[in-house]
Amino acid sequence: MAIKSPIGVAFLGLGRMGETHLRNLLGLPGVKVVVVADPRLEAAEHGKALAGAEEATTDVERAINSPSVDAVVIVTPTNTHARLLEVAAKAGKAAFTEKPIALDLAETARVVDLIREAGIPVQLGFMRRFDPGYARAKQKIDTGELGRIELFRALSRDTYPPSLEFLRGSGGLFLDMAVHDLDLARFLIGEVEEVNAWGTVLVDERFSEAHDADTAVTLLRFANGALGVIETSRHSNWGYDIRTEIAGSVGKIIVEAPQKTPMVYATNFASSFDHFENFPDRFEAAYRLELEAFFRALQEGRKPAPGPEDALETLRLALAVTKSWREGRPVKIREI
Amino acid sequence: MAIKSPIGVAFLGLGRMGETHLRNLLGLPGVKVVVVADPRLEAAEHGKALAGAEEATTDVERAINSPSVDAVVIVTPTNTHARLLEVAAKAGKAAFTEKPIALDLAETARVVDLIREAGIPVQLGFMRRFDPGYARAKQKIDTGELGRIELFRALSRDTYPPSLEFLRGSGGLFLDMAVHDLDLARFLIGEVEEVNAWGTVLVDERFSEAHDADTAVTLLRFANGALGVIETSRHSNWGYDIRTEIAGSVGKIIVEAPQKTPMVYATNFASSFDHFENFPDRFEAAYRLELEAFFRALQEGRKPAPGPEDALETLRLALAVTKSWREGRPVKIREI
Amino acid sequence: MAIKSPIGVAFLGLGRMGETHLRNLLGLPGVKVVVVADPRLEAAEHGKALAGAEEATTDVERAINSPSVDAVVIVTPTNTHARLLEVAAKAGKAAFTEKPIALDLAETARVVDLIREAGIPVQLGFMRRFDPGYARAKQKIDTGELGRIELFRALSRDTYPPSLEFLRGSGGLFLDMAVHDLDLARFLIGEVEEVNAWGTVLVDERFSEAHDADTAVTLLRFANGALGVIETSRHSNWGYDIRTEIAGSVGKIIVEAPQKTPMVYATNFASSFDHFENFPDRFEAAYRLELEAFFRALQEGRKPAPGPEDALETLRLALAVTKSWREGRPVKIREI
Amino acid sequence: MAIKSPIGVAFLGLGRMGETHLRNLLGLPGVKVVVVADPRLEAAEHGKALAGAEEATTDVERAINSPSVDAVVIVTPTNTHARLLEVAAKAGKAAFTEKPIALDLAETARVVDLIREAGIPVQLGFMRRFDPGYARAKQKIDTGELGRIELFRALSRDTYPPSLEFLRGSGGLFLDMAVHDLDLARFLIGEVEEVNAWGTVLVDERFSEAHDADTAVTLLRFANGALGVIETSRHSNWGYDIRTEIAGSVGKIIVEAPQKTPMVYATNFASSFDHFENFPDRFEAAYRLELEAFFRALQEGRKPAPGPEDALETLRLALAVTKSWREGRPVKIREI
Repeated sequence: MAIKSPIGVAFLGLGRMGETHLRNLLGLPGVKVVVVADPRLEAAEHGKALAGAEEATTDVERAINSPSVDAVVIVTPTNTHARLLEVAAKAGKAAFTEKPIALDLAETARVVDLIREAGIPVQLGFMRRFDPGYARAKQKIDTGELGRIELFRALSRDTYPPSLEFLRGSGGLFLDMAVHDLDLARFLIGEVEEVNAWGTVLVDERFSEAHDADTAVTLLRFANGALGVIETSRHSNWGYDIRTEIAGSVGKIIVEAPQKTPMVYATNFASSFDHFENFPDRFEAAYRLELEAFFRALQEGRKPAPGPEDALETLRLALAVTKSWREGRPVKIREI
Repeated sequence: MAIKSPIGVAFLGLGRMGETHLRNLLGLPGVKVVVVADPRLEAAEHGKALAGAEEATTDVERAINSPSVDAVVIVTPTNTHARLLEVAAKAGKAAFTEKPIALDLAETARVVDLIREAGIPVQLGFMRRFDPGYARAKQKIDTGELGRIELFRALSRDTYPPSLEFLRGSGGLFLDMAVHDLDLARFLIGEVEEVNAWGTVLVDERFSEAHDADTAVTLLRFANGALGVIETSRHSNWGYDIRTEIAGSVGKIIVEAPQKTPMVYATNFASSFDHFENFPDRFEAAYRLELEAFFRALQEGRKPAPGPEDALETLRLALAVTKSWREGRPVKIREI
Repeated sequence: MAIKSPIGVAFLGLGRMGETHLRNLLGLPGVKVVVVADPRLEAAEHGKALAGAEEATTDVERAINSPSVDAVVIVTPTNTHARLLEVAAKAGKAAFTEKPIALDLAETARVVDLIREAGIPVQLGFMRRFDPGYARAKQKIDTGELGRIELFRALSRDTYPPSLEFLRGSGGLFLDMAVHDLDLARFLIGEVEEVNAWGTVLVDERFSEAHDADTAVTLLRFANGALGVIETSRHSNWGYDIRTEIAGSVGKIIVEAPQKTPMVYATNFASSFDHFENFPDRFEAAYRLELEAFFRALQEGRKPAPGPEDALETLRLALAVTKSWREGRPVKIREI
Repeated sequence: MAIKSPIGVAFLGLGRMGETHLRNLLGLPGVKVVVVADPRLEAAEHGKALAGAEEATTDVERAINSPSVDAVVIVTPTNTHARLLEVAAKAGKAAFTEKPIALDLAETARVVDLIREAGIPVQLGFMRRFDPGYARAKQKIDTGELGRIELFRALSRDTYPPSLEFLRGSGGLFLDMAVHDLDLARFLIGEVEEVNAWGTVLVDERFSEAHDADTAVTLLRFANGALGVIETSRHSNWGYDIRTEIAGSVGKIIVEAPQKTPMVYATNFASSFDHFENFPDRFEAAYRLELEAFFRALQEGRKPAPGPEDALETLRLALAVTKSWREGRPVKIREI
């Protein structure tokens, strides 16, 4: 797919993460935001001004089809991703989209097929893969510095539980939160064959109302024989807490919850350091680097990654975990 | 139980850990090693010289019954613990014993009953409880600084896999290794209701020959609603790796694998610090402190802890985990 | 000073740091690079393309005077700073400039006077003040969490010694390197009254040829009574090593050499983590934040900091340290 | 010097550190405390009971001369060390003594001569050399893993300022506190040629009354060309804070103020870990290991270290630092 320079971008969705992504775009060489679209005209106009774009519109689909647009960046609500990818596929535009494609496996598979047929480059927003810590972990694993992988552990604790409204559309704890750890599991270790999840409600009774869990532990069995655990929680009183650990026959890697700053403060017989409050700060570099990687792939004619097939397989995994939790039994991924 | 001063001790078993325990005894005020017993006379004589004891003998049971002995310290092989505790109970001598009492639940229950009937003070060697890190964790939990407990995680990796001979008498991965994490789970969080374990052989094919696993992941459901995971491995190329994490509604605790020394070395764009090679170094303080606590309890007329009931309940838990692994299904503790 | 929106910028100097600064500018809202100037036309053209600027020129002074330019960003060689600031002052343009204004005190004072008379907003590139670690340290000090300040310690080790050519125009170890620590000393603690420096050549004999030192230790006495030390070295085999420590009656702060990523790797009985190789990586956020602060100050009509007076006073301090080293005696700042 | 087994010990001085040393002795093989002496009979009796010794006495000099005594351990007040070493030398008894020999150079030299002539093995209580962190640092330096040494930094902050009474007999900040860092400087790097110290009173006005400083910074120039700094303070609100850093052409070592336990607690967007309150805890292992090393040297017929010459040279250095501070000028060690 030939891409002209600068690459004309339709930027879709100006919520909080939208503005972060948009600002990150501004520093990229060879990329020009042409149109900013959001159902709220005010938001679109704000984005247009920020980006020095030519146009602001509330018609998101029309923005994709604009002739000066080569690529779209989709930061709209989850339930619009599939449709917008479909429009992009039909228009032959490259797309970066926030995960997921959809919360439904059949719908996701349908869109992945459309994308494959259209041959458009698509990258999913599994930003953790671009965090310098996770990227270095991947590199160490690939060079064999861990030896044969034996154990995987991932923990994710969100700082604040979401609203009940968000919950109802989120697909639940495993599709919304654990999905990032499942993507890391696939990225770092490989495909998973079987899972077993236990979940409960400890944080907030609203999760019971939503027929969801807010705390869970999950076992993983990988195709290569390694075992794994994932711990998931909707609340953390000590900041956004994302950690991953991979142990092998030769070495071990821990990606830690980093210090917010290199400053350590000591008083009263103790030293302390700050944690990041939430994902925009913790993964600030990752959000910049994933967009940079997407556009660099376009410029160099390479296929961006993670791609739509990753969205599909990670969704399948998250659905298996959800099924295991709901049915109280181990679930093989091939059941899904 | 009235204890005279100094407390006369029969020290039973002069293997490697025996010598460590014996040296730790020498620094304790109000404690006098009277007799050292080991089936190998040479070992007993070595211990006698080390401790300035009055007698060395190969007759372990007779040592317990010596009139100048008030308390016994049992560091003999696992399969002798039950019998020696029985002798101590009959003789009315206090006992500190390495864990376990026995690998069989009925036999353990029988000995626990004997001990209860005899009314002798008995402490089990779950030394991690006395490690300053774990003791501080317990204190933080008890003062409410974690709030309601939500998640427990324990990881144990032994540095070197044991010999096949040891394996055959060990009771398997969960009774021999995970048992320490299960004791911590009970000590720090409370009783467990249900477990689900997956195990495999990744380290060494000899574990298959012994019908054992060398790598495992286990889910826990606690009576108080909290969830937990335990990771267990028979090999670590980076040193003895024991860590525990407890997260609650208010705070989180991590007991880390500590630096071996406070020295950090930097070169070639990286800093590094050493880990302990094995348990005698990692838990050096814990081994000292557990004996100190045992004898202080005797001196102050308090019941030492952890006691025989802890050995029984932790064994029950380890048997449930083993059963879960063997049968490939969740197991309720009350099934055991 | 009224500033229109977007602020038109003349970007001066497209060396390596120039490109970093230019990219950082691109993500700033309300800022537009109008012209990029560099004596090498190719470099200017590269910058123009990168920024989507209107013009590339080799005539740096003319660029400042362009009517669509409101502010200049000076990233040219040190010996041009004074002249370009003079041109900016005469043209009434705001200026962000890499430090120093000049290596000569009289020349610096002359330019500071010109700036004061012209009333233009000027910010100096002491980027460390904007590093999240140092900014947090400043905040802790200002809120009294350290109590009365007692001790200041700063260490700077450059990764690679510079070329002899660079050395000859650098003003020497204290004006070129220690100046950052001296600025931090003034920023965090306050004015210095007296210094005493010892220097030597341990890294590279070329420093002797340049009549310079490559390794030094310096004592500071602050006006508020606190004491301080600065350690300076031109070489580090373990990465760019910048650390600062402030101790007071109540608390202590250490700004550490941070981990390059949150990944820790363990093997062979040790854990290790990576360090940053050099300043562009270590202070990546600081370089972004200092420009953001400069333009935000312009937009909000506030005086940016650190300003030209800081350049003057920090230069005076660096000259005093140099004099102390050369004359082998303590030097009071008021001597300079 | 032939030493019988077990080595008979006269233990002199049962203050707080005395009891710590005495307990450490009890765990040592081949060592037997024969007599405990203290001017306060009660203290001596307490020590006798603790050690199972044969005799308690208030006559410290007679205890040294007891025929069953081979070695003396001197933990009495500073102003008695010289006299007791003299008695030990005349009696031909080996001696471990707390530092210093004396606060006066001539007196120290006289005792060192007596010791040399008597040929008795003497070890000084510079315990930091035996801390596992410092011992590992020494090992790294000796194996060349730092390359050529360039910079030394030591910081010592005592938790609590001492009483005015203690101060008056202490020899001042540099003889009492910095002396440990000066010993480390000699141990790790080598002899010092010149020093320059600045001191002040920031912690407590009583130091002014005692004509002493409570806060100081000192420059060092080593004979091998390396430079150094020492920071010294009589107060720390965050626990006993002892750190040392050595940087060379190849690598760097930091001996940190270690975590009190491996437990890290997180809440409110920060993690914290505890520090040791004071030297008996921070250097617990060092106090054990220095006595173990002393008696092992006796048992193996080796000369123990650090010896009386170290006491003399380190005192000379501390006197030079004091002189530099008092006279406000650099002082060459050979002036003393």
